[in-house]
Amino acid sequence: MTTDPADLPGDDFSLDDVRREGLLPARGAESAPHDGTGRVELAFTIEDADGAPAAQRSVRVPPGVTVFDSASWNGIAIDSTCGGHGTCHKCKVRIDGPTPTSKHDVRTFTRQQLDDGWRLACLVQATRDLAVDVPPLTTRPKAATVGVGRQVILRPAVQKRYVELDEPSLADQRPDLPRLLGAIDDLAPTADLHVLRRLPTVLRAADFKVTAVIVDEDLIDVEPGDTTGQRYAIAFDLGTTTVVATLMDVGTGTPVAVASMLNKQQPFGGDVITRISATMMDPEALPRLQQAAADTLAQLATQVCREGGVDPEHVYEVAVAGNATMTALVLGIDPEPLGVAPFIMSSAQPPTVLASDLGLTLHPRARAMFFPALGAYVGGDIVAGMLATGMDRDKRTRLFIDVGTNCEIVVSNGDRILATAAPAGPAFEGGAIRCGMRAADGAIEVIRLTDTVDLTVIGEVEPKGLCGSGLVDAVAELVRVGLLDSSGRFIPDEQAPDVAPKLADRLTMIGQERVFVLHRPHPDAEPEDCVVLSQRDVRELQFAKAAISTGWTLLLEELGLEHRDVQQVLMAGSFGSYISPASAVRIGLVPKLPVLRIVSAGNVAGEGAKMALLSIRERAGADALLREVTYVELSDRTDFNDRFVDQLGFHG
Amino acid sequence: MTTDPADLPGDDFSLDDVRREGLLPARGAESAPHDGTGRVELAFTIEDADGAPAAQRSVRVPPGVTVFDSASWNGIAIDSTCGGHGTCHKCKVRIDGPTPTSKHDVRTFTRQQLDDGWRLACLVQATRDLAVDVPPLTTRPKAATVGVGRQVILRPAVQKRYVELDEPSLADQRPDLPRLLGAIDDLAPTADLHVLRRLPTVLRAADFKVTAVIVDEDLIDVEPGDTTGQRYAIAFDLGTTTVVATLMDVGTGTPVAVASMLNKQQPFGGDVITRISATMMDPEALPRLQQAAADTLAQLATQVCREGGVDPEHVYEVAVAGNATMTALVLGIDPEPLGVAPFIMSSAQPPTVLASDLGLTLHPRARAMFFPALGAYVGGDIVAGMLATGMDRDKRTRLFIDVGTNCEIVVSNGDRILATAAPAGPAFEGGAIRCGMRAADGAIEVIRLTDTVDLTVIGEVEPKGLCGSGLVDAVAELVRVGLLDSSGRFIPDEQAPDVAPKLADRLTMIGQERVFVLHRPHPDAEPEDCVVLSQRDVRELQFAKAAISTGWTLLLEELGLEHRDVQQVLMAGSFGSYISPASAVRIGLVPKLPVLRIVSAGNVAGEGAKMALLSIRERAGADALLREVTYVELSDRTDFNDRFVDQLGFHG
Repeated sequence: MTTDPADLPGDDFSLDDVRREGLLPARGAESAPHDGTGRVELAFTIEDADGAPAAQRSVRVPPGVTVFDSASWNGIAIDSTCGGHGTCHKCKVRIDGPTPTSKHDVRTFTRQQLDDGWRLACLVQATRDLAVDVPPLTTRPKAATVGVGRQVILRPAVQKRYVELDEPSLADQRPDLPRLLGAIDDLAPTADLHVLRRLPTVLRAADFKVTAVIVDEDLIDVEPGDTTGQRYAIAFDLGTTTVVATLMDVGTGTPVAVASMLNKQQPFGGDVITRISATMMDPEALPRLQQAAADTLAQLATQVCREGGVDPEHVYEVAVAGNATMTALVLGIDPEPLGVAPFIMSSAQPPTVLASDLGLTLHPRARAMFFPALGAYVGGDIVAGMLATGMDRDKRTRLFIDVGTNCEIVVSNGDRILATAAPAGPAFEGGAIRCGMRAADGAIEVIRLTDTVDLTVIGEVEPKGLCGSGLVDAVAELVRVGLLDSSGRFIPDEQAPDVAPKLADRLTMIGQERVFVLHRPHPDAEPEDCVVLSQRDVRELQFAKAAISTGWTLLLEELGLEHRDVQQVLMAGSFGSYISPASAVRIGLVPKLPVLRIVSAGNVAGEGAKMALLSIRERAGADALLREVTYVELSDRTDFNDRFVDQLGFHG
Repeated sequence: MTTDPADLPGDDFSLDDVRREGLLPARGAESAPHDGTGRVELAFTIEDADGAPAAQRSVRVPPGVTVFDSASWNGIAIDSTCGGHGTCHKCKVRIDGPTPTSKHDVRTFTRQQLDDGWRLACLVQATRDLAVDVPPLTTRPKAATVGVGRQVILRPAVQKRYVELDEPSLADQRPDLPRLLGAIDDLAPTADLHVLRRLPTVLRAADFKVTAVIVDEDLIDVEPGDTTGQRYAIAFDLGTTTVVATLMDVGTGTPVAVASMLNKQQPFGGDVITRISATMMDPEALPRLQQAAADTLAQLATQVCREGGVDPEHVYEVAVAGNATMTALVLGIDPEPLGVAPFIMSSAQPPTVLASDLGLTLHPRARAMFFPALGAYVGGDIVAGMLATGMDRDKRTRLFIDVGTNCEIVVSNGDRILATAAPAGPAFEGGAIRCGMRAADGAIEVIRLTDTVDLTVIGEVEPKGLCGSGLVDAVAELVRVGLLDSSGRFIPDEQAPDVAPKLADRLTMIGQERVFVLHRPHPDAEPEDCVVLSQRDVRELQFAKAAISTGWTLLLEELGLEHRDVQQVLMAGSFGSYISPASAVRIGLVPKLPVLRIVSAGNVAGEGAKMALLSIRERAGADALLREVTYVELSDRTDFNDRFVDQLGFHG
């Protein structure tokens, strides 16, 4: 019952469609389509203005992602103004080893440069490990490329204006504030008490030559001299498990530093429900959870500022993309109504607060903006993700899946957009899985079954367990080779040698449960001491993927669509981005489509947060999504359970 | 050179004009015009709902003020909806002893009631000491009478709405905030973090029956159950010397309690310049001055809440009327640029802040609004005063004088409004006066020279010194009897027995300086141990009144007006309100007009603050004054000094 994605019906969708999205090279790039499995490593060397290596960064991405996106998602700035469409010819990098050449490369570079490895980063798909030299930024762009091939015209909420004012006299007694604002002709902000307290002193100490700092409609500070070059903000992806911070230079649209860490709320439970439960059991839990989130954000902010060499006082705004529960907890809002039917938020649009309200020590009046939420289980992180993927600005039929304990699903037919949430359980995060672990050193992240078991292990150390993408690979490969039948049951021991002679001896028992040994630390190791996939693990994954596929099946039906109508599947989130497209297709997590239509979209919540910091227009777009997207509640659908059972198996 | 105001030329102005203002009884009240001197005491007995006496309050006002205004300015609530124009017939009080009867009284009361002393409070001028019974409030008015006869339609910024919401369900998953706001059809406030933190808990604890608390555009709280009856705010007159707080029930427009105390900034100096200087000498002075102001406001807030029996958590807004320096200090803004040429404010319109920013422990999100200022020396207190006196809504030519160390002067011809400031020095506040003191127990506040010296002393105790109104009376009376000549010099000893035979022996010397003994503690007391008026005191007062009269003379000229064109003079401020009109005319502090045109306007800054709390429309009117009023800077006028010298003498 193995299924080769290349054999799938419905491949009536041309590569040109993908190219239009900018996620694949334009014609002429001639790179071979990848098979959607495994992981590639890109070793970036960032050069200084003299061309000398200034920094090294290695990143791992699913094959097929462009070099430009791989860099961008990891906070490495490459010149670009066109949004990765191969038209601005600015994203020049030098790649070690033979690399396909596009017609745009030929127009951009000399013969010698091409021989030296120069290519446009947006046109090179990473299908193998690459070493990439990144020249220093040469332009002060008016636009930046973020999200999934989204080009954003820079219009950040954080604005600075340097002014040299006339000094007051008896003939010109204008107060300080109108004197300052009168010199700024394109903005009319209001001043708060903080800035009025500083204004008289700073103006006179700086001989009336000052820089006004404006966030949105508010004048938040006046700084002596010209500080227009220091204009920073931090984008936070506030995940239940992992929190990612990107320090952005909003004046240039470039990321300065990226850092991530586990959410310090972990001791209260691995998922949102256990954390909500904690607040219901113990009145002290809410302030402690709030503090844990604040500590996480503060530690990351300190880290990115230190790594970027940026004074935290020059960070004037943060954007936070988090699910409804994470948002409530970091704001100190009781999450209990989110956790019990009928699942009610306090507000779809959290208020703009001060960064200091979140425990952050940045500029004292720095603002914190949150993304609005569609529902208790389709939160601000998903809205940010929709923004980053342009779900509302693409005429194609697209399916967006954020895979995690709670899985959010969005479908757009280019006209209507539907969203829902599916309770996938903790399988993808390593929870309830016998040898499950998070995607950390020692986790098996890629599995390929041949005559033996080929493992890719994070950190290239002794395998210790199985992370979400490894779990999906394991099940997909066992289904492919036939050791798991279509119902998800290990085949009887006596049939195994015929089906997979070299692997059959790995099928064994721990107690009453059948397991498949993925890694044996030494030849005589007992099964209990091995990294295994158990029958119960397979069941956990089946339930998770059934919940998810039931979700998108019902949404597609709601729009009158077939699976094959889906032109692109975006797999998002810190788990979804790392599941190999081929395995996702094979186990039925996503519709059975050619792997080229399955795109790893990266940390789209964080990308959306960056976009909101770079453009108030994009931010308004996030608010508009609240009106454009219809939330579909599945928990009261009478047909949900029937569909769920249909989706449990592994059908070819 | 004595001048009887009744003999003055230019009395072509009829009483009807005064009546229209509502400051004098309508025709028919038949009370005798007062002579503009002295003080009267009104003993109010406030009755409870059963008609039993619930509280006693005695107040002292210049004669001629109506019973209604005397009560209102002192925080005693009397029913009224018409603004004291004798038309609503609601302000019923019972007055002990014979009182003139107006035609409105005859229409309102039975013969028996009139015999029992019932009168309409707005039509009775207090020309003698009165005992007044005030019945409990019977109506929940839509308007209140505040300021100088201003009727304010109630539309406070503080609003409450009691709602009973549908409970959420899977079919109605609206978040808490839109659920609440959807039930309020006439307001669309925004919510801040504080209210979002409370919303989920309060809604569910109160079975979705709650009261929304809205200030301006902001939802600041949601309270369990129906609390619409508790809606309070505090009006502060933040004076350099004295601070007055009035706790207002903004739902009914009635004052609940009034308290006043000395500004705790006094140890830093008696006037604004010494306090600004303190901040220039010592960097610690600004925070200490800020704290002193905060402590003053906080102590008064506690006092009025306790006296009014009001939970401070139910106080949702405060309005602060203060001069530019007091405003800067309480907000912690460096006042130095206000104190040195060219006298620059940080902002004409201070920002709205939280009451907690001022150190007040009221509702945690209570707002504090400040009045805008016209200039460094025509501050928010004067704008509040202009609002309270309706300077921009009266077609008459009026002169408004707030007498103090810094004297503010406003002239309106019913079309244009001009304002200026005159540095009067500390004479009116008792400073630089040999026996000067503040208007506290033991201060001589009224002086009349006959064959002897008749003194009215605050607290009816042994005289200890001379307050501002006593100083003006002393000089005016000595000019009237001829012991001071028109240049302000005591006449020679040898002439005194002829001019004032019974008083001549009071003219004596302390050292080289001539003094007039006002009070001798015992027959053998040395002049040094007496309360005296010295030659230097007279000079101080001359300088002060010359500065002031130069100010209004120049403003009148600017508008092409003569003194006699002025139809009403409003004497305002804690000093100005207590100077007797006749004495003010006699020394030339105000234009030489019939005393009936000189009106004691009370604490108009505090009244303006009350108006701002009761009506957002009036508040907008205060902002409009910034555009309507032209500030005239006198310090660079070349003709100022010549005029000043002209004004020094006491001319008939």
